[in-house]
Amino acid sequence: MSRTLATIECAPASSAQLMSAAEAELLANLLKALADPVRLRLLRLVAESPGTTACGCHLPAALGISQPTLSHHLKKLIDAGLLIREQRGRWAHYRLASTSLDPVQGLLDTCR
Amino acid sequence: MSRTLATIECAPASSAQLMSAAEAELLANLLKALADPVRLRLLRLVAESPGTTACGCHLPAALGISQPTLSHHLKKLIDAGLLIREQRGRWAHYRLASTSLDPVQGLLDTCR
Repeated sequence: MSRTLATIECAPASSAQLMSAAEAELLANLLKALADPVRLRLLRLVAESPGTTACGCHLPAALGISQPTLSHHLKKLIDAGLLIREQRGRWAHYRLASTSLDPVQGLLDTCR
Repeated sequence: MSRTLATIECAPASSAQLMSAAEAELLANLLKALADPVRLRLLRLVAESPGTTACGCHLPAALGISQPTLSHHLKKLIDAGLLIREQRGRWAHYRLASTSLDPVQGLLDTCR
């Protein structure tokens, strides 16, 4: 009887191997880079632009932010590997590095 | 000639509607709740447990953390709607709220 109760009360945790500390750190840093409203709007704007590329000249007006604010957020996304900067003539262009989101997709796939 | 150069130089930004401020805020808060190595390991441990549910009694040892540290991180995940707490007898059980990750999946789907 007490054994049955214990079975009801206690769901075992997974015996699968824990996510490694290195993987957790990497994924947390990627998610931190994404976890900002301005960066999310910026990333999706670039993702939806033709060729998933947008010229920097359009971005402040499109997002309603100043050039310094844009530069700050672009740096975070580039440092995280989410955007790639390409100089084309006068202006820098920003292209989505879509495979950089694969670790996030991997997390979601284990949570379904 | 100058027109051709301008075409080469400047990739237009998307003309699609910008992500709304409310959607961006909601998604950023969800990503902030995820963006921590301990919480990522905890969430995946629960996701991989039978019935995507684990009893709290197993979690400190499984994750190698203290009970207060566990409580802190559980609260963040519950507040973000990522885990659901269920009292079963002596122990609280934690279940993955898998649909709460749908907004993150929506972001990834637009970035492919």
